[in-house]
Amino acid sequence: MTVRSHVPADPDYQSRVRESFAQQRVMGYLGATLAKIQPGYCEIHLPFRPELCQQDDYIHGGIVGTIADSAAGYAGFSLMPKDSSVLTVEYKLNLIAPARGDLLIAKGHVVKTGKTLVITQAEVGAMTNSEVTQCATMLQTLICLHQ
Amino acid sequence: MTVRSHVPADPDYQSRVRESFAQQRVMGYLGATLAKIQPGYCEIHLPFRPELCQQDDYIHGGIVGTIADSAAGYAGFSLMPKDSSVLTVEYKLNLIAPARGDLLIAKGHVVKTGKTLVITQAEVGAMTNSEVTQCATMLQTLICLHQ
Amino acid sequence: MTVRSHVPADPDYQSRVRESFAQQRVMGYLGATLAKIQPGYCEIHLPFRPELCQQDDYIHGGIVGTIADSAAGYAGFSLMPKDSSVLTVEYKLNLIAPARGDLLIAKGHVVKTGKTLVITQAEVGAMTNSEVTQCATMLQTLICLHQ
Amino acid sequence: MTVRSHVPADPDYQSRVRESFAQQRVMGYLGATLAKIQPGYCEIHLPFRPELCQQDDYIHGGIVGTIADSAAGYAGFSLMPKDSSVLTVEYKLNLIAPARGDLLIAKGHVVKTGKTLVITQAEVGAMTNSEVTQCATMLQTLICLHQ
Repeated sequence: MTVRSHVPADPDYQSRVRESFAQQRVMGYLGATLAKIQPGYCEIHLPFRPELCQQDDYIHGGIVGTIADSAAGYAGFSLMPKDSSVLTVEYKLNLIAPARGDLLIAKGHVVKTGKTLVITQAEVGAMTNSEVTQCATMLQTLICLHQ
Repeated sequence: MTVRSHVPADPDYQSRVRESFAQQRVMGYLGATLAKIQPGYCEIHLPFRPELCQQDDYIHGGIVGTIADSAAGYAGFSLMPKDSSVLTVEYKLNLIAPARGDLLIAKGHVVKTGKTLVITQAEVGAMTNSEVTQCATMLQTLICLHQ
Repeated sequence: MTVRSHVPADPDYQSRVRESFAQQRVMGYLGATLAKIQPGYCEIHLPFRPELCQQDDYIHGGIVGTIADSAAGYAGFSLMPKDSSVLTVEYKLNLIAPARGDLLIAKGHVVKTGKTLVITQAEVGAMTNSEVTQCATMLQTLICLHQ
Repeated sequence: MTVRSHVPADPDYQSRVRESFAQQRVMGYLGATLAKIQPGYCEIHLPFRPELCQQDDYIHGGIVGTIADSAAGYAGFSLMPKDSSVLTVEYKLNLIAPARGDLLIAKGHVVKTGKTLVITQAEVGAMTNSEVTQCATMLQTLICLHQ
């Protein structure tokens, strides 16, 4: 995947994304934080918590998907115009290794921008003692709603 | 989708699924309950809670995906042998209407069983005053790990 | 999947779909025919041909996907307005049994219509001596382009 | 996507992949050729032909998916053991630009190898006058069948 540099339509994209993230109450409830936002890129961190686990004591795949969905969604939203809003149309998530470790790191990238639809991808890594193992990859479609 | 009747390999599938669900600590953390389990079918309920919402006060798509993932996963697990375990390989989720209302209902069905892989689907509805609107549909691949 | 009855926006949807199908030269090249078109439903048939096969002498999964894509796409297009056109945004295809037999039958259904996006699904069966085995299932997103 | 170097289990992977590709009769029927095979990587070329088009004179998305499926599948097969065979479990394809031009180039990469399942991705570009526009991206799951 070639990562191209993107020029944001809205110079205030940083505060617009941070404000929207702060309104996603589920991020606070899970313990996820917005670690980085750049044009076409977003990184979300989620420290391990036992109450997010499935039956084998890994973070549940749906929670992995939740931070990947938001990371890729805000990567896309960073390039959208000032008065727009964003919704996820769909995503596909492959869980490729157990999501265990100290911290999950979800990195969302924009693949293609269009006026209405934006295609993104995300990768999620699990970090233990500063070593990261990729645990999931996602391909996502967003829709930009213009006011 | 034709729903066929399935014969479970393990007559104790009910208690095996319920035990595994109880070990998914994230289900309790979100407030989700296992409402029904039958051979090849599983239903999970999630009452609305503001702390599960995204920026527009709908339940976050990733949380919708979390209960759909578990509903479809346990639909598949109900047909697996006694000493097996189940992992999600991947899923694709289409979010087709806002997930708002009093209660989310995720219904998982088995589409095709194999010795190693099981294909399932799930639909999620949002109920308000006993009226249900479909808000998501999922297609999922599971792997059965034999001990 | 509940199949609801749909009311087409364009009473001439049949001829509009048939005309578009006739312009898909690849359908003729593969040997596929438009077997049935109803509001929100489309069925495409593809007789077995050795030149469509992969290394194990099954019809190649991509060709299975091609007729599923068109069946689901025309299911969606049947409900779109007169002067619109349709494009596939994305699809996910699970190949659940070998595509062999005398005839492949792809059935596309509309799951949800919206002004811009339409969500559809398709199932492909392989028929041998009038017995049909399901060989693939697809979940698809379409975009309606208004002139 | 970080592209890692892969060590093939079978030193004769090149001839094994080329032999399998030659048995995919559909590749010849479409006019596709195996342009490059390396450990964990495969490239397939498909010159434009009007008989592969949909109603807008672009290459049909299902045909784009067919070469992406084979490119990613052979990327995975290149790393599998000598006496194994490969089947596609599922794939998701996003069509991000019209597939028109002189030549389609599908590049498949391995994302993660396992004993049973291999996760891959593919990108398809459309080349006109030596300029390439990305027209599709795919995420795929393969199964390795050991004899």
